[in-house]
Amino acid sequence: MDDILEVIRSRRSIRQYKKQLPGDDEIERVLEASRWAPSGLNNQPWRFLLIKDKEKKNSLAKFTKYADIIRDAPVVILVCMDTGESYNRDKDLMAIGACIQNMLLEAAALGLGACWLGEILNKKQEVSEYLKLDEDLELMAAITIGYSDEDVTEGCRKSLKNLKIELKK
Amino acid sequence: MDDILEVIRSRRSIRQYKKQLPGDDEIERVLEASRWAPSGLNNQPWRFLLIKDKEKKNSLAKFTKYADIIRDAPVVILVCMDTGESYNRDKDLMAIGACIQNMLLEAAALGLGACWLGEILNKKQEVSEYLKLDEDLELMAAITIGYSDEDVTEGCRKSLKNLKIELKK
Repeated sequence: MDDILEVIRSRRSIRQYKKQLPGDDEIERVLEASRWAPSGLNNQPWRFLLIKDKEKKNSLAKFTKYADIIRDAPVVILVCMDTGESYNRDKDLMAIGACIQNMLLEAAALGLGACWLGEILNKKQEVSEYLKLDEDLELMAAITIGYSDEDVTEGCRKSLKNLKIELKK
Repeated sequence: MDDILEVIRSRRSIRQYKKQLPGDDEIERVLEASRWAPSGLNNQPWRFLLIKDKEKKNSLAKFTKYADIIRDAPVVILVCMDTGESYNRDKDLMAIGACIQNMLLEAAALGLGACWLGEILNKKQEVSEYLKLDEDLELMAAITIGYSDEDVTEGCRKSLKNLKIELKK
């Protein structure tokens, strides 16, 4: 099957969205993909907070310099780590990265645009207080989702040659 | 497109492999998928060390209690973080998780089995010394790849209901 590599390569961060709302079934599929990520000891440390409410998005936007992306995206999914279920922070962070990648790939496969926003982590404590999150929940990323209102762009990555480690003699 | 969600859901950790070697072109595709993961500031902190040599696999196997998986897998890919290119450890770890997930999904799409091994990180310093890795390279995971010699099994994940955060009033 060739499709996955194609989606992996062609997916881009989409920061501008049409007003049209993605269907609830599409967002459920995106979350369904997320929950099937692998994790160490299968501890599944990821938790999801779905935000579509305009007022909440506007308030959330104040915690990041990428305010307009959060404000204009029809759907925002906050991904948190349940630190109460954590057993190794490095591995749990990688597992959450795998979970987010599933989310982004499924969104792309459905024809949706998405963006992984990390800058908001600079204010993770303030976000937590604003949302009154349980103290076990630590914000890891905000994922914005909607129909793309951007032109298709070229991606840019290091070549494999520059990523492969050569062993010393 | 429905295929990605199907691959995401049906992929399993495969710990027993047939002797048959995956093709070099297949392993290149797996690495190609990996390098297209997203990362903060597009810093691409992942680096890959491909190991097929029997003697090296046997030596590497001594650093983990899952020795037989590493010994018997036709291909082992060590994924490292280039800490010299790191800008935020949490985000870089998540990016590497996304990169590994691409690897696992592309392997599954190609009909290959793979396993993400993290236990070897308990001996990451010793692995580093054995392989004489540059000091900027920090081991993050060992990924074993080959044709599955296991029966298909059911996966098990928490339900979405248990992963969704409900906001307090």
